[in-house]
Amino acid sequence: MAEALRIAVAGLGTVGGGLLSLLQTNGDSLAQRGGRSIEVTAVCARDKTKDRGVDLSAIAWYDDPAVMATEAEYDVLVELIGGSEGPAKLACEAAFAAGHHVVTANKALLAEHGTALAKAAEAAGVTLAYEAAVAGGIPIIKAIREGLAGNQVSSLHGILNGTCNYILSAMRDTGRDFGDILTEAQELGYAEADPSFDVDGVDAAHKLALLASLAFGTEVDFANVHIEGIRSISAEDFQYAGELGFEIKLLGIVDGGEDGVRQRVHPTLVPAAAPVAAVDGVFNAVVTEGDFVGTSVFVGRGAGAGPTASAVAADICDIAAGRGGHAFGMPADALAESRSLSMDGREGGYYVRMRVIDRPGVIAEVTGILRDQAISMESIIQRGRAPDEPVDVVLVLHETEESRMIGALEAIAALDTVSEKPYLIRIERFGA
Amino acid sequence: MAEALRIAVAGLGTVGGGLLSLLQTNGDSLAQRGGRSIEVTAVCARDKTKDRGVDLSAIAWYDDPAVMATEAEYDVLVELIGGSEGPAKLACEAAFAAGHHVVTANKALLAEHGTALAKAAEAAGVTLAYEAAVAGGIPIIKAIREGLAGNQVSSLHGILNGTCNYILSAMRDTGRDFGDILTEAQELGYAEADPSFDVDGVDAAHKLALLASLAFGTEVDFANVHIEGIRSISAEDFQYAGELGFEIKLLGIVDGGEDGVRQRVHPTLVPAAAPVAAVDGVFNAVVTEGDFVGTSVFVGRGAGAGPTASAVAADICDIAAGRGGHAFGMPADALAESRSLSMDGREGGYYVRMRVIDRPGVIAEVTGILRDQAISMESIIQRGRAPDEPVDVVLVLHETEESRMIGALEAIAALDTVSEKPYLIRIERFGA
Repeated sequence: MAEALRIAVAGLGTVGGGLLSLLQTNGDSLAQRGGRSIEVTAVCARDKTKDRGVDLSAIAWYDDPAVMATEAEYDVLVELIGGSEGPAKLACEAAFAAGHHVVTANKALLAEHGTALAKAAEAAGVTLAYEAAVAGGIPIIKAIREGLAGNQVSSLHGILNGTCNYILSAMRDTGRDFGDILTEAQELGYAEADPSFDVDGVDAAHKLALLASLAFGTEVDFANVHIEGIRSISAEDFQYAGELGFEIKLLGIVDGGEDGVRQRVHPTLVPAAAPVAAVDGVFNAVVTEGDFVGTSVFVGRGAGAGPTASAVAADICDIAAGRGGHAFGMPADALAESRSLSMDGREGGYYVRMRVIDRPGVIAEVTGILRDQAISMESIIQRGRAPDEPVDVVLVLHETEESRMIGALEAIAALDTVSEKPYLIRIERFGA
Repeated sequence: MAEALRIAVAGLGTVGGGLLSLLQTNGDSLAQRGGRSIEVTAVCARDKTKDRGVDLSAIAWYDDPAVMATEAEYDVLVELIGGSEGPAKLACEAAFAAGHHVVTANKALLAEHGTALAKAAEAAGVTLAYEAAVAGGIPIIKAIREGLAGNQVSSLHGILNGTCNYILSAMRDTGRDFGDILTEAQELGYAEADPSFDVDGVDAAHKLALLASLAFGTEVDFANVHIEGIRSISAEDFQYAGELGFEIKLLGIVDGGEDGVRQRVHPTLVPAAAPVAAVDGVFNAVVTEGDFVGTSVFVGRGAGAGPTASAVAADICDIAAGRGGHAFGMPADALAESRSLSMDGREGGYYVRMRVIDRPGVIAEVTGILRDQAISMESIIQRGRAPDEPVDVVLVLHETEESRMIGALEAIAALDTVSEKPYLIRIERFGA
C-alpha cells in the first residue's frame, strides 16, 4: 500500500469529533477503499483541554488554523471551522499556498468565495472537495458532478436545511406555532441559539448556490439567490395546505436554460405525491431533472456528526485514491458567468392567505382584482362566519407570472377590508 | 485539452443508440466535465444497414465484438451486448488483454464473472466500470463505492427491476391478475417476449449480487442469492396488503455482519411509509444503511435508452478525467470470500395467504400449529362465509425465524382442510 495520506483537521466540534471517531472505527476499510491509510498528523481547535473521547496526545496541536495550514506536515487540510470569512478562509488559502488539498464542510465559505477558491486550488494543482457542505451524508456533490455528467440538468430542487424541515414537520404534526416549535428545537439541539441562518433560509441558499454551479456549469452566484425563510408560516397554513392536498416545505430551487438560471429558497407548497413531500424531520432531499436520466431523487440525513463525517471521509478517500477533479465539475475558468433570472418572471401557482373583514362584497373585491390581472382561481377556503370581524381567506391561484401576482397582492393589501398584508406561498407541482 | 478519449461501442440496440444520441447532444459539456472529448472510433452490431438516426459512415465497423476489442483503435470498450457468456465476455476479455478499459451495462456478465473480470482489469492496469448495470440512471455504484466509503454498510435493499415494479404497481392500481398485466407490459415494451429473467427475479438478483459485493467488500456471489419471482402474487394479495397497511414490492435485500451476508430477492410486504413503498412503475430505488451516514435513499429510472446511456456516459467521463478505481471499491484480491447465510436463519414477519375449507375448527387447527411453533399472530383476515367451500384466510405473523415458519407452513399445508399450498410473503418493516 502507498504511503499514508496525512490530514490536518481544523475544528474539533461535532463534525471534527465525528471524523476522528469514523477514522478510528472504519479506518481500515477506508484505507482499503482509498488505497492508503489515513493518518491525522495535526489538529487545531480552541480548547486543548476538552475531552473529545479520542487520544490526541501524539498529534501536533495548533491554536491557529492558518499557522497549521502553513507549517504542519500533512497532505489534506480538513476545514471544519465554518464561517465565510476569517480563520476558515485564511486556513484554506494557506493550504493552497502551501500546495495542500482542502476538504471542507463550509457552505458559507464556498457560497461566498467558491469560484475564487476553486481557481486557487487549480492553480496549486490540488483538490478542493466539499461533499459535506451540502445535504450532509447524501453524496449529492459527487452525484451531480460525476454521476449525472452526461446530462444537461434543467432543474433541481431540494430540502437543504434539516432545522427548517424539522420545524415544519413538527408544526404540521402538532398544530403548534413556529415560535413554540423553534424553542423546542433549540432545547433538543436541532436549532442554534441564534437560528436566523437556518430559519431565514440563508443556509439553504448557500447550499443551493453550490448545487446550481455544479449542475449548470456556472460560477457560484450566492448574491443572486432569492431568499425567504419560514418565520411567517402559520399553524393554520398547514391545515389549509393539508385540506388542499399539499405539504409545505422550505425548498431550494434552481431552474433555467439559455437565458439564465433562477435560484431561490422559499417555503413551497408541493403535492403530497411529490418526492420531497414525504421527507420529514432532519432528513434532506435533492431532486434533479436531467435530459437523459430523467428524475433522480437523493434522500439522507442532512446534518449531524455521523453523516457529515461520512461525507468528509468520502472526500478524503477520493483524494487518497487519486480521484481528483475540479471543484465544480469543470475548470473554474470554464465556468460560465451566472446570468440570473429575476423572480418577476417566475411562472407558477400561488397560495395566498389573507385576513379580511367578514362583510358582504369583500370576496367580490378581491376576486375582481385577480380578474383584472387575468389570474384565475383554483380554490378558495373561507372558514366560519364572524360578521364585521377579521377571518382567514385562503386562495389557490392557477399558474401565472409572479409580477402579475405581486401586482394583484398589492392591490388586495390596499383594500380597507384586508386587515394584514396577505401571505403568499409559491406552489410547485413536482411529481404531479 | 488532452487528446480525445476513443471509444469502441459493442452493441447498437436501445442503449447503444441512446449513447450515440447522448454523445451527439451533450458531447461538448461531457468533454468539459471529463477534460477530454469523446470520440467513437469503432462500432459493432449485427445489422450494418439498420438506420440508427446517427451517421456511422466515418466509424470503423466490425461484425465481431471480440475482433473489434482486439484490433480496433480505441481506449475504452463500451460493452452493450448483454449475456453472461459468449460475445460479451469474449469482447471484455479481449479488451483487457489488449490493455483497454471496459465500460459495461451487463449485470449478468458481472454477476457470474465479476470478480474474475475485476482481476483481469487490475492485471491490465485498466478500469472496469459498470454504473449502467444496476438501477439504470441512478449513480448507485458510485454512491456506494465512493460516496459511502467511510461507512460499514449493515444492510441494503432496493427495487432493482423496473419490469416487475411496473407489473406490481399496475396489479395494485387495476386489481387485475399477473398474467393480464404481463401481457399488457409486453405490448407496451416494458417486458420482454420471454419475461422470465425479469419476473422470476434473476435480473434483480444479478444486480443485488453486485451491490452486495460493493457494500460488503466481498467477492461477487450470485450463486448464493435466494431468488423468488412475482408470478405467484395474486390480485387479492394487493387488497389484503392494502388493508393491512402494506405495499408489495419485489426487493433485493442484503444484510449481514461478522458471520456472513444473506442475499435475497423476493416479494416483500413493506409498510406504506417505507422509502421504497412510494416508488412505482418503472422507477428503481436503493436504500442503504451505513454506520455513520444512517439511511440513504436513491431513486431514479431503472432502465431505458436515456437513463442507461446517462450511466454509461458517467463511467466514460470518469475514465476521461482519470478517475479510475477498483471495480468493487477495493483491489479484487482484497475482496473477502463471501460467506453466505441461509434463509433458514432469517428473522422477520410473514404474510401467509391460504385457501381453507370454511368449516368449524379450521382456524383452531391452523393457529394451533402456529402456537406449537411459538409463532405469534398479529392479524387475521377471513373474507365472507361459504360453508364447506374454500375461502381465503390471510395471516400476518410476528417476527420469527424462517425455519420455524417453514415448518409451520408444511404442517398447515398437510391439513385436510387446506386446499392449496399456502403462499408466503416476507414482511420487512423498513422505515417503520
